[in-house]
Amino acid sequence: MAPRWKGKGAEAKALADPVSKIVAQLQSSLIQTSASGILSGCSVLIAAEAEQTDLFSRACFGRPIVTVDKDKQWFQLSLEEAFFLCYSLKCLKIKVGDSSPKSYEELWHCMITRKETFSDLYKAYSHLRMKNWVVKSGSQYGVDFVAYRHHPSLVHSEYAVLVLSEGVGNDLNGRLRVWSDFHCTTRLCGSVVKTLLVLYINRNGNSNVSPLCLEKYTVEERTVSRWSPEQCREE
Amino acid sequence: MAPRWKGKGAEAKALADPVSKIVAQLQSSLIQTSASGILSGCSVLIAAEAEQTDLFSRACFGRPIVTVDKDKQWFQLSLEEAFFLCYSLKCLKIKVGDSSPKSYEELWHCMITRKETFSDLYKAYSHLRMKNWVVKSGSQYGVDFVAYRHHPSLVHSEYAVLVLSEGVGNDLNGRLRVWSDFHCTTRLCGSVVKTLLVLYINRNGNSNVSPLCLEKYTVEERTVSRWSPEQCREE
Repeated sequence: MAPRWKGKGAEAKALADPVSKIVAQLQSSLIQTSASGILSGCSVLIAAEAEQTDLFSRACFGRPIVTVDKDKQWFQLSLEEAFFLCYSLKCLKIKVGDSSPKSYEELWHCMITRKETFSDLYKAYSHLRMKNWVVKSGSQYGVDFVAYRHHPSLVHSEYAVLVLSEGVGNDLNGRLRVWSDFHCTTRLCGSVVKTLLVLYINRNGNSNVSPLCLEKYTVEERTVSRWSPEQCREE
Repeated sequence: MAPRWKGKGAEAKALADPVSKIVAQLQSSLIQTSASGILSGCSVLIAAEAEQTDLFSRACFGRPIVTVDKDKQWFQLSLEEAFFLCYSLKCLKIKVGDSSPKSYEELWHCMITRKETFSDLYKAYSHLRMKNWVVKSGSQYGVDFVAYRHHPSLVHSEYAVLVLSEGVGNDLNGRLRVWSDFHCTTRLCGSVVKTLLVLYINRNGNSNVSPLCLEKYTVEERTVSRWSPEQCREE
């Protein structure tokens, strides 16, 4: 399935301004201002400078939230987005309450405590982000993530992403276990013109007690499509 | 959601010729000819007389299959359809191979051996059929059944039916366990304009060793719909 660009010129616009470049700009801007966010529930809040507001939006991290604070635009980042900026891009510090910024180990522990599926979802999220896919929540489509080739204003999301894992008792394993769920998912993906991408996180026998485990996890990728015997017949 | 009739006059046509009447005609015709079917794999094959061919189609049991036999039209019934005609309507005998017709107990045993979820699916199927819903396979939509108010040529199916059960290790329990599956299912149902109907089969502590258990099973019905906060706001 080819990417579905939104209107004329969208593809050229995307090519002229690659996601990798925008993310690098955001990274360098956050480093220069020693940006920090605050962990709150299952998200991280950050007050962005004017330039950063633009970069957060263009790089598709978080969503702007309305506050009484007129001078600063606040952004709400998901745990995966925040940890990616913090741990993988090393451009964001994260605090819990009024304390000093947490170490990677402490943060990781906070996150897997708040969301038991965090380690596998983060592996999947960072795996796609590292390849310059724009990754957003897929809850609207009943999947874990949706992946875009570029900014959602320029292109429709191409992949509906489900993350499965071998982790015992892991909620991620509740999906695609029976045929009716498989049919339901591929049919829905078809009707919203997305390809189902299943990322299977193989922990290779490692636990999830530290972010160092991420390097030892591997990712198997499968796309799943409906197949119609009528379409494949002899003439 | 109101029933979606197919074209003008469809509703009047349906009212003039209720499903209960058509099924009663099929029942009496099958009794008169001492009809019998043959269990083959996960379906039951039956050679229909001319009048019965029409009644099978109008009552929506089975699907016609093409054979070299020009004098008779063969129908392929699902296990639920066949057992409903045999056990609930007492108008069809079922043989296995060349033997004499099987008793209800023997047939039940054959069916739960071939399909481990049969007892719960049959309870759901017969529950809806007894209330004069037309029930067909829902595999196209990733659910167990779809339910129509009348014949599919007159009306679109209104309900996508998922059957859940307390039976241990039962495949039926693989659905709706995680939120992403819930979202996926309700979103798909919305996009095909059906309401999700979840039938929860409560075995009330009874096993499934005999068809007599069916009377002891109870059915809880729930419809599940998406709710949008925007639609329910103050003016």
